[in-house]
Amino acid sequence: MSQPAAFDLVSFGETMLRHSVAPGERIETARETELRAAGAESNVAIAVSRLGGTAAWLSKLPDSPLARRIEGALRTHGVTPVVAPSETGRVGVYYLEPAGEPRGTNVVYDRSDAAVRSATPEELETEHVEAARVFYVSGITPALSETLADTTRTLLDRAKAAGTHTVFDLNYRAKLWSAATARETCEPLFDAVDTLVVAERDARHVLDREGDAAAIAADLATTHDCETVVVTRGAEGAVAVHDGDVFEQGAFPADTVDAIGTGDAFVGGYLARWLDGASVSESLEYGAATASLKRTIGGDVVTVTPSEVEAVLDRETGAIDR
Amino acid sequence: MSQPAAFDLVSFGETMLRHSVAPGERIETARETELRAAGAESNVAIAVSRLGGTAAWLSKLPDSPLARRIEGALRTHGVTPVVAPSETGRVGVYYLEPAGEPRGTNVVYDRSDAAVRSATPEELETEHVEAARVFYVSGITPALSETLADTTRTLLDRAKAAGTHTVFDLNYRAKLWSAATARETCEPLFDAVDTLVVAERDARHVLDREGDAAAIAADLATTHDCETVVVTRGAEGAVAVHDGDVFEQGAFPADTVDAIGTGDAFVGGYLARWLDGASVSESLEYGAATASLKRTIGGDVVTVTPSEVEAVLDRETGAIDR
Amino acid sequence: MSQPAAFDLVSFGETMLRHSVAPGERIETARETELRAAGAESNVAIAVSRLGGTAAWLSKLPDSPLARRIEGALRTHGVTPVVAPSETGRVGVYYLEPAGEPRGTNVVYDRSDAAVRSATPEELETEHVEAARVFYVSGITPALSETLADTTRTLLDRAKAAGTHTVFDLNYRAKLWSAATARETCEPLFDAVDTLVVAERDARHVLDREGDAAAIAADLATTHDCETVVVTRGAEGAVAVHDGDVFEQGAFPADTVDAIGTGDAFVGGYLARWLDGASVSESLEYGAATASLKRTIGGDVVTVTPSEVEAVLDRETGAIDR
Amino acid sequence: MSQPAAFDLVSFGETMLRHSVAPGERIETARETELRAAGAESNVAIAVSRLGGTAAWLSKLPDSPLARRIEGALRTHGVTPVVAPSETGRVGVYYLEPAGEPRGTNVVYDRSDAAVRSATPEELETEHVEAARVFYVSGITPALSETLADTTRTLLDRAKAAGTHTVFDLNYRAKLWSAATARETCEPLFDAVDTLVVAERDARHVLDREGDAAAIAADLATTHDCETVVVTRGAEGAVAVHDGDVFEQGAFPADTVDAIGTGDAFVGGYLARWLDGASVSESLEYGAATASLKRTIGGDVVTVTPSEVEAVLDRETGAIDR
Amino acid sequence: MSQPAAFDLVSFGETMLRHSVAPGERIETARETELRAAGAESNVAIAVSRLGGTAAWLSKLPDSPLARRIEGALRTHGVTPVVAPSETGRVGVYYLEPAGEPRGTNVVYDRSDAAVRSATPEELETEHVEAARVFYVSGITPALSETLADTTRTLLDRAKAAGTHTVFDLNYRAKLWSAATARETCEPLFDAVDTLVVAERDARHVLDREGDAAAIAADLATTHDCETVVVTRGAEGAVAVHDGDVFEQGAFPADTVDAIGTGDAFVGGYLARWLDGASVSESLEYGAATASLKRTIGGDVVTVTPSEVEAVLDRETGAIDR
Amino acid sequence: MSQPAAFDLVSFGETMLRHSVAPGERIETARETELRAAGAESNVAIAVSRLGGTAAWLSKLPDSPLARRIEGALRTHGVTPVVAPSETGRVGVYYLEPAGEPRGTNVVYDRSDAAVRSATPEELETEHVEAARVFYVSGITPALSETLADTTRTLLDRAKAAGTHTVFDLNYRAKLWSAATARETCEPLFDAVDTLVVAERDARHVLDREGDAAAIAADLATTHDCETVVVTRGAEGAVAVHDGDVFEQGAFPADTVDAIGTGDAFVGGYLARWLDGASVSESLEYGAATASLKRTIGGDVVTVTPSEVEAVLDRETGAIDR
Repeated sequence: MSQPAAFDLVSFGETMLRHSVAPGERIETARETELRAAGAESNVAIAVSRLGGTAAWLSKLPDSPLARRIEGALRTHGVTPVVAPSETGRVGVYYLEPAGEPRGTNVVYDRSDAAVRSATPEELETEHVEAARVFYVSGITPALSETLADTTRTLLDRAKAAGTHTVFDLNYRAKLWSAATARETCEPLFDAVDTLVVAERDARHVLDREGDAAAIAADLATTHDCETVVVTRGAEGAVAVHDGDVFEQGAFPADTVDAIGTGDAFVGGYLARWLDGASVSESLEYGAATASLKRTIGGDVVTVTPSEVEAVLDRETGAIDR
Repeated sequence: MSQPAAFDLVSFGETMLRHSVAPGERIETARETELRAAGAESNVAIAVSRLGGTAAWLSKLPDSPLARRIEGALRTHGVTPVVAPSETGRVGVYYLEPAGEPRGTNVVYDRSDAAVRSATPEELETEHVEAARVFYVSGITPALSETLADTTRTLLDRAKAAGTHTVFDLNYRAKLWSAATARETCEPLFDAVDTLVVAERDARHVLDREGDAAAIAADLATTHDCETVVVTRGAEGAVAVHDGDVFEQGAFPADTVDAIGTGDAFVGGYLARWLDGASVSESLEYGAATASLKRTIGGDVVTVTPSEVEAVLDRETGAIDR
Repeated sequence: MSQPAAFDLVSFGETMLRHSVAPGERIETARETELRAAGAESNVAIAVSRLGGTAAWLSKLPDSPLARRIEGALRTHGVTPVVAPSETGRVGVYYLEPAGEPRGTNVVYDRSDAAVRSATPEELETEHVEAARVFYVSGITPALSETLADTTRTLLDRAKAAGTHTVFDLNYRAKLWSAATARETCEPLFDAVDTLVVAERDARHVLDREGDAAAIAADLATTHDCETVVVTRGAEGAVAVHDGDVFEQGAFPADTVDAIGTGDAFVGGYLARWLDGASVSESLEYGAATASLKRTIGGDVVTVTPSEVEAVLDRETGAIDR
Repeated sequence: MSQPAAFDLVSFGETMLRHSVAPGERIETARETELRAAGAESNVAIAVSRLGGTAAWLSKLPDSPLARRIEGALRTHGVTPVVAPSETGRVGVYYLEPAGEPRGTNVVYDRSDAAVRSATPEELETEHVEAARVFYVSGITPALSETLADTTRTLLDRAKAAGTHTVFDLNYRAKLWSAATARETCEPLFDAVDTLVVAERDARHVLDREGDAAAIAADLATTHDCETVVVTRGAEGAVAVHDGDVFEQGAFPADTVDAIGTGDAFVGGYLARWLDGASVSESLEYGAATASLKRTIGGDVVTVTPSEVEAVLDRETGAIDR
Repeated sequence: MSQPAAFDLVSFGETMLRHSVAPGERIETARETELRAAGAESNVAIAVSRLGGTAAWLSKLPDSPLARRIEGALRTHGVTPVVAPSETGRVGVYYLEPAGEPRGTNVVYDRSDAAVRSATPEELETEHVEAARVFYVSGITPALSETLADTTRTLLDRAKAAGTHTVFDLNYRAKLWSAATARETCEPLFDAVDTLVVAERDARHVLDREGDAAAIAADLATTHDCETVVVTRGAEGAVAVHDGDVFEQGAFPADTVDAIGTGDAFVGGYLARWLDGASVSESLEYGAATASLKRTIGGDVVTVTPSEVEAVLDRETGAIDR
Repeated sequence: MSQPAAFDLVSFGETMLRHSVAPGERIETARETELRAAGAESNVAIAVSRLGGTAAWLSKLPDSPLARRIEGALRTHGVTPVVAPSETGRVGVYYLEPAGEPRGTNVVYDRSDAAVRSATPEELETEHVEAARVFYVSGITPALSETLADTTRTLLDRAKAAGTHTVFDLNYRAKLWSAATARETCEPLFDAVDTLVVAERDARHVLDREGDAAAIAADLATTHDCETVVVTRGAEGAVAVHDGDVFEQGAFPADTVDAIGTGDAFVGGYLARWLDGASVSESLEYGAATASLKRTIGGDVVTVTPSEVEAVLDRETGAIDR
């Protein structure tokens, strides 16, 4: 009857309120915004929770209805928020203005002074990290403050020491820091990472890697002694190197309603399947299917069921199901 | 000054409340649904009414605001609801979650225990069927209950006996019954059908027909002595066999906003034109144009005018009309 | 690190989807409905969870997005749904048409054939009931089916036997059953009830009690050997008899936005405080404050914090807080 | 099987599109408007249709989607639109800005050049007027143009000659014409009126009557030889004089959501009951109940059922009905 | 043809984005927020601009769509934004949760780190202040930072020296600073103030004044040598002391939709009339009428015309105007 | 400190209220419309204002909230409305029904009797035209009435005489007048035009020109002695002839949300850049980029910043910017 003492996945990072305007609308003139909760680390936790695992999200929040909203949003999808209370600081916010060519979707961050930026290991219930099967953090977290860069380092180390499988997604955000600073801060973290995920574009631009995706993956795996390196390639899918083997995975075509969160859905789907005992190859395919579903769904979160992912894998979808 | 004593078309079936969520939204998390009335038989009646004919819809409903809403929706478009009152049973409902690839649009039926499922010929004003020029029913009606299968049989027989032209659209729904049961129930009805409409996919999967669309149509026409058999082929258009002649009709390209009801719009447009004295070939083209317009319109119903259908036939459309 | 092995409160009952139209709008003509989850037993569990306790909700649901929506809504507020899966049956629905005088708010039930109606003790994880500190069920549950009346009986008995404090709120619904049947079914249950809650109007109309509220409470407490009987009196507050003592509690004035769920908020607030060790008198006041806040909030659920309830008790509210 | 050859009530007038902004919103800054159809004569026809009678509405409209919208809105409620087509002219529009004290609800007319303003008896199917049991027109119609004043005169005369009971509601609109012009135009019409309805305020201000409501009614009845004169008094109800007898009727209290259309609902309810054979006294009470329900409903139209009106008469309403 | 070289009124302060949820909705669970621009100093400038004066608003904003939105909102109402660009800092935001008793409307500030907090006189085009007829600032501005307290002091001094009439509204916000700090910071400013506005409640609680409103006003006028002191009393109206004379003004009753901004509307109406040459007494009445209109309008801003204010003064309002 | 005595651009024409229904919705059944202000001449003025110039818009409007809304919409974007008051006439309105193939977007004009149709030079502050650097008017203005055709002629002449650069966009609207009348009215105006803009389609259909776009431009430039002639070609871009030189400009690809106003955005962008001293070639490219952005934005107006236009020119767009 008791709940499990350890979560399959624990993540650590910032989750923001997302205010999005309707397609074609501009923030400058919109009368309404749609509110959702959004953040790489909670997105991944939600994907894992929805697809069969148990998940918790560590963070730090002030006492406010905005914070309660974020916690409620995570709980809705079965994720346990483990939140350090903060006397100071805000809840991070971002405004989303979706658009196609040539304007492109615009993200306006209003995340300065977020409470999470001061989170130290002492404040966080890091025992959840050590007890978890997987610990996930993205490169957004160390980008937010020096304190968070240190905390990220510490949490990765503690996880590694405790035998928790560590997963790091570089997730470079040009609006948060320069490529050079990102590299300086993140690359040293990779030594504590078991599964490294990086977009091919970021591997080139931030990490200064060259060669094709497989070569990049192999290089990173060797350099940092990572068990697995996944290089994501957007519409071209992903390539993974695991124990020296190369796995290629195409992307499933999708009619995109909201592209935000596609990468997190991929990682979340991958980890959900991997936590279920699947191979890297199977996990990649499951992640790609999950990612393609995400693109059909508004918001950062992949609100799907395992049977929906399986239907994509079985190619049973597309027409009206009635 | 008096209203016409007989309708051009009378249909019989279930009309549901349709709760649809916005594109990209999930039923699981949506805060709002849009309400409309929807049902193959009323969709066809509305199309005929809007395109120049007079139409009535026979059904059975409980006394509730949900039922009154459905009746009002039909009247809005000029269709006369002829409804047997029911002491028991619900108003059928369906939830619609529109999505593109790879998720696909999902229809969640909540139509169990609908009042119409117990409708017997005795309760219905079947004199409207006998007085009408056309009687239309789809394969969804007999799928709903054994009572309705019997009632459908009786109504088709009475129509046939009275000289009313009978139209049956197989309209197979996998969420309602198996292909085998559908065949067992429906194929015997075909002998009472003057114009049979069937999707090529259903002809193969449900009716076990082989060959191309024309061959299937010819085979069905011969086997069941139908005056006309129309095999619809989705984006490829339709093929009809009438008195041994084969008529092919392509589909008009459309930017689809809501695909639900396309088939009903095709049949409704076809019948409206046919009732107006047109040939099968002209009626097919008119039906195809009506169907293409439907795809640009939200909801199950083809809210168009005859001049809009004619503009499609004249290829006068596409740019901004100002 | 593990979750508590036992919940402070476990409830058992049906939670429905609530489709509400805007004030002034009619179901018959509304274009949109707002969706929420609603049910007496989950309302009470949510109130307890939000106000400091741990809570679980037992029920039975089919596998559908409507069911997942209900589970998600409960989790949002920290309540654990413990749901028996059902192969058959629907998710209950109700339509709400809010209105003032002389029309009055109208509730249209569409809850026939709900999966929960077939729930038996064997299917339910009743160990949660036995482990809980409080078990709550309302008179709506036994009204839904004979099976549920039996299951309610069994669960109350098991709770009682296990030392769980049992709470029963008569919550008479004229659209579900007659007063006579309600009395026949419910009154025998009272012997297994520790805290009985009943509206004064229902005490008179359903239970045929006479005298003032205090007399009714005393009579019920004596007859059924209840530890506490609370008689609620709407705008006049509530009267409780506990161990022979009478406690009166007025209602806090409220500008009502949505009155649905006020009674559940009262019971939830009462139990949250009582579970925290407060006296019956303190718990009554806390329940009354919680109920008054509910009236200012849309939906069935009392989305408040403990500090908001305390502000009402401290009369610190009313003006703009900025 | 044929529809009735004659309607219980036929009305003649303008129905407009109503664009309303939300309470608290200003037309000057609103981003959205809600669309409805609205007009005294169609409001009355709809009330009669919904409350048991058959009704038609005569008017003149251009060929446009705005016109089709109005026709559809009438049909929804069972009213038959009998519309003369117009090559020229607009569909009248009004903007509604609801507000309480001290601003007050503001109606901004945009109804110049409406097609109906040129409607002549020759264009209209006046045989419906002659065949009807009741012909209804309000003082708004002759206010719109000299042509309409003449047409109103002719239609009243033809109705009277044909034995149709004529009903005229003065319905003075200060934004359309001066009191003096209204009196000059309307008072001569009264001789052709069987039942005259006038607001006490208008009786004083427009018709220069003095004395209390009963005296005014008696005076008007005598002067113009009207069978019945009803003087409406807003929150104080109404007074009727019929065959020399005086009938007083109070107003039912109502929580007002939208006051527009209250007078039309009163007349519609009165006529529905009167058409059903009730006395003037009973009809007044039924009209008052209908009017009170209207105030709880958004839009100009009284979307109610006979049983809802009866519940008001039985005082069975007010609490939540569940 | 050139624009006026000097504005009637110049104000200086922060304007925020206001995210408000619907009545009955909670920030914690709302799916949508309504966006408006809001701030005491821009509210007053807008009121003056709409009621006949020319007005500019000085502030400091970052380069972002949120900032452009605020500037656009001011321009909409004819106010000229004179904005110092900022490389750092945010646009202040507040969340509004409207509610009646006992919850009360809640304002959640998210205005930390706003760019305006660093605004110095050197960055601002203070020549507008010196050229203006009136300079207005509220006590919110010095509450935001020490820099702003200094800047407020400097601007008031420069205005005074240039012969600009200075107006200061204490506008105490308990969520921004303590009463003691507010007093320490603001009271020294009063010596540079020609017209001082203070709520009676704040005069007592913040400024430690005693006696009735007239006594407080007289005391403040004497102590600080203010030409005019206006003590506002909410629903009881306002009292002013001007040149030793006492003027009392009642409040106009209002059906409140949104109370936020009522005080600013009062001051704006007062100043618009005063700028037009009216006496203090006339200006008070005009301000009271403007304030009562504000309560009927959603948002912080009093979107009215001079003729609407005059209609309130003439008591010509309340019924439907059609 | 004073505002500039002369505007970079002054335009003259009608601006309407635009009521648009959602994609897939029909005017006939829509419950809501979205309101915006829209008109070729104000669209161009707004584009110039937003992209760095100063702009005024001359027109004539009645005193109504609809008129104030239009003025406010222009001011929001920095355009000064210079409006002659009108005792009579309406505010023009249009209804927009967006749709793709085969229905096509439909514009339903409701602009008869607009106040602007009676605007004479005497009523307008034409000194703004004479003082401006550019005067812009489209062929829609002379289409609205003979008075406006005369006024357009006079304003172009006065501008020309005053040395203001005159710009005329033919902007043919088949729903307003025939091609023959348009040619008769507009072609004589060209002699007073410095920069003529015409769609290739209209050059052929209305002006009876033949040959390719460059030949048409050269022909028009020669015939009417225009400094510059721009022939727009939709998705193929535009061709300009200036001082005998030919400049070709392709269109930037765009994901279209709302195509209305694309041509105005092109002209506005072109003029903003040209006013900034750029060559015709540079201005064409800037106009094309502005036009492509417009297509991604709802409403008639190109709500962009100079840096967004520059990002299109630099091809820096398309992906998510975060």
